[in-house]
Amino acid sequence: MPEASANIGVVGLAVMGSNLARNLASREGNTVAVLNRSRAKTDELVAAHPEAGFVPAFSYEEFAASLQRPRTAIIMVKAGGPTDAVIDELVRVFEPGDIIVDGGNAYFPDTIRREKAVRETGINFVGAGISGGEEGALLGPSIMPGGSKESWVTLGPILRSIAAVAEGEPCVTHIGADGAGHFVKMVHNGIEYADMQLIAEAYDLIRRGTGKTPAQIADIFADWNTGELESYLIEITAEVLRQTDAETGRPLVDVIVDQAGAKGTGAWTVQTALALGVPVSGIAEATFARSLSSHPEQRAAAAHLPGPDALRLAALAQGPEGVADEDAFIEDVRLALYASKIVAYSQGFDEIRAGAAEYGWDIDLAAVSRIWRGGCIIRAQFLNRIADAYTTTPDLPVLLAAPYFTEALTRSQTAWRRVVIAAAQSGIPAPAFSSSLSYYDGIRADRLPAALIQAQRDYFGAHTYRRTDKPGTFHTLWSGNRTEIEAEDTH
Amino acid sequence: MPEASANIGVVGLAVMGSNLARNLASREGNTVAVLNRSRAKTDELVAAHPEAGFVPAFSYEEFAASLQRPRTAIIMVKAGGPTDAVIDELVRVFEPGDIIVDGGNAYFPDTIRREKAVRETGINFVGAGISGGEEGALLGPSIMPGGSKESWVTLGPILRSIAAVAEGEPCVTHIGADGAGHFVKMVHNGIEYADMQLIAEAYDLIRRGTGKTPAQIADIFADWNTGELESYLIEITAEVLRQTDAETGRPLVDVIVDQAGAKGTGAWTVQTALALGVPVSGIAEATFARSLSSHPEQRAAAAHLPGPDALRLAALAQGPEGVADEDAFIEDVRLALYASKIVAYSQGFDEIRAGAAEYGWDIDLAAVSRIWRGGCIIRAQFLNRIADAYTTTPDLPVLLAAPYFTEALTRSQTAWRRVVIAAAQSGIPAPAFSSSLSYYDGIRADRLPAALIQAQRDYFGAHTYRRTDKPGTFHTLWSGNRTEIEAEDTH
Repeated sequence: MPEASANIGVVGLAVMGSNLARNLASREGNTVAVLNRSRAKTDELVAAHPEAGFVPAFSYEEFAASLQRPRTAIIMVKAGGPTDAVIDELVRVFEPGDIIVDGGNAYFPDTIRREKAVRETGINFVGAGISGGEEGALLGPSIMPGGSKESWVTLGPILRSIAAVAEGEPCVTHIGADGAGHFVKMVHNGIEYADMQLIAEAYDLIRRGTGKTPAQIADIFADWNTGELESYLIEITAEVLRQTDAETGRPLVDVIVDQAGAKGTGAWTVQTALALGVPVSGIAEATFARSLSSHPEQRAAAAHLPGPDALRLAALAQGPEGVADEDAFIEDVRLALYASKIVAYSQGFDEIRAGAAEYGWDIDLAAVSRIWRGGCIIRAQFLNRIADAYTTTPDLPVLLAAPYFTEALTRSQTAWRRVVIAAAQSGIPAPAFSSSLSYYDGIRADRLPAALIQAQRDYFGAHTYRRTDKPGTFHTLWSGNRTEIEAEDTH
Repeated sequence: MPEASANIGVVGLAVMGSNLARNLASREGNTVAVLNRSRAKTDELVAAHPEAGFVPAFSYEEFAASLQRPRTAIIMVKAGGPTDAVIDELVRVFEPGDIIVDGGNAYFPDTIRREKAVRETGINFVGAGISGGEEGALLGPSIMPGGSKESWVTLGPILRSIAAVAEGEPCVTHIGADGAGHFVKMVHNGIEYADMQLIAEAYDLIRRGTGKTPAQIADIFADWNTGELESYLIEITAEVLRQTDAETGRPLVDVIVDQAGAKGTGAWTVQTALALGVPVSGIAEATFARSLSSHPEQRAAAAHLPGPDALRLAALAQGPEGVADEDAFIEDVRLALYASKIVAYSQGFDEIRAGAAEYGWDIDLAAVSRIWRGGCIIRAQFLNRIADAYTTTPDLPVLLAAPYFTEALTRSQTAWRRVVIAAAQSGIPAPAFSSSLSYYDGIRADRLPAALIQAQRDYFGAHTYRRTDKPGTFHTLWSGNRTEIEAEDTH
């Protein structure tokens, strides 16, 4: 058996795992034990990176023996069965007080279940969301660890050493107990779906509205990236749109099949929001837009359905609805994108707050916003404004109502309306732009037609209603003499 | 022990259960055994309805003894634990070949689980969705039974005897194995959410757009109910809008708190659609609109956010976007409602088809449409058109592309656009109208910006993409020399 020379171990040496192991090894004070199901990958990694000083292990026993106490290991294998299998092995060879970290993309209820099971053995279990892809794992990801406070004492310094740094602060914080980390990572991904869909709609509107080429639109995005929209996703959109396909000489984006894939975290975010009663319409529309795109047989069957005349579409370049020219239209799209993005993030943070209340997590929303400023896919300037809002008013009822965002929305709303109108007028689908505007007009409405829905529900299902002028619950005898009775509040 | 004189039994005698029992008893050939947890309700029902000839039972043993074989019992108790408890009791006293029907609003995965467990005892278990509320239960509901074909032989004639009748046909059909009935009932409810939200938006647009009173709008709905929108929900909307509050003299709809409740079936429908990869944006927006309305603290916090100037709103009455007058605007709203409704139903039927494929159910979509024509909340003329479409083309890829709906959408789309534009222009939230139009423009689009999303995913996560001009899966070396490589299809 080896001596206990490593302070941290990594199990699972596919790209994400080996990059994370290299990241760990490159930081002062870390010695990294590595273990993989097949020996070849371990040998390969150790040989390729002699500078890392890896401590290879070829069995769970060796792996455990090579780790100082409390033993700390990060699992980087596929979510689901493979993760459970590795946890079982580690529980077998670890001891009370040791720490098992699941760094995969687990569904948070699984993390809650695993934490509970592992805790009974006296071992700490930490579900940690890690965002930033392969490059982030190597150079500095954004890390969202859940689990006990006790484990954070040991784990904190290690994770701080490898996390991305934004404005001097490492992009990691202890999110909350058990599944809190994976929950927040899930919502991060949901917001990412919305952000990407909004960018795609902005691109489509500019392209079809003005006839500009992808390369020209790349310049627009690059320009946007110098202002309030500055973010990784805007930056890479410019890169992507500038790319020419070597084989055909066409813009790469025109050569790619227009069916978007998904790995399920967007759907999880929306499913969870539905269970929590939080409207996340921006994320939902983004998720549905991907699934719509991926049904080619339905799209082929519906291709004959009519849109507006071509004339209207061409007219867009001259500017829709009072927009005087092309540049003004593009500026409108920029403002619509910004406003819709505020709505998407506001909805996402609502979901985190509702999740924290439901599962008893004490989540600092400002801190969540700050650790997303670096390393992860949705990193953006903008997150500083969210952090400010929640720092100033920790119990803010809804993010978009904070002063900074009120100013931004006030400045954007007219342009936003013009863009949604242009989309409807010209037959360009803009589900996330439109849905966000509807949400905005809904949440600020003095009175909603939900009252009519309550009356309908009372009519056909005796579901009762409340009155604006007095307490209690009431029912109209719709199939009787139509008088109102006070009802027990049982529906 | 009583002699076996009853051919059908009902367990659970709250309003729905006792109404269903009375309905059964009123039909030729049925003798109905009744059982309730508390004796009082049974005595009360039997005393109140001597004409029904009920066979009361006061224990499960008595209940079983009073039933002819195969014993057939319908459970009408609360979903969840209470249903499981009654099933356990019935399994205890029933014998192989007997039939247990759960007529409650069970979540279909629970029905699949229960059917599997009960089947092992040799007893048949049928999850049956029953729609139509209290009145439907008494006078004729729409019934959606799942379960085995064997049980349908006995159950079919009984259920046909009590179902609503539409154009001479009873509103019941064997939907498919195990959970198929409750699945279809779930989607029925999801469609109901969408239908109600669309009606609420139409009302709100007309009210705020033209300043008409609820009573005047009641006349409009009553008029709509004579045409292609003819349906129960349009009919009761007119009734509701015409209702004056006796206490204040104001329209009742103005006295009701504008926060819509929900019992979860809308959320289930959307959660399930997300798992199946079916975009049901209309149902999702309707579900979210209810939850948005029910967060008064958020609405209060957001009330200061600005909308368009009042001037624009007033201008609506003169007609938005080329609509010449008030009547034309109202006709536009009618067409927008019809078009959006087609989208909502098309999405709902997509979900049923996808569910059938996923769970191995052989569901006749035309038959589902026909049994919704009577008894249930979404009963409508319109369902004949859906039945026609699926009868003509059973493997129709998407309902809205069928000839009848193509004609309707072609006729409506310009008006629909004007209404969505009017909503955006005037700051009236119309999430379901807008979302349906975006879906329409998305599914008919020749090319979607989903290609850009695929490129972004390839950039940050090496998720790969496909090309329009050749088979295979590709990856651009974004952080390398930006050439394209052929990738293994693992992402």
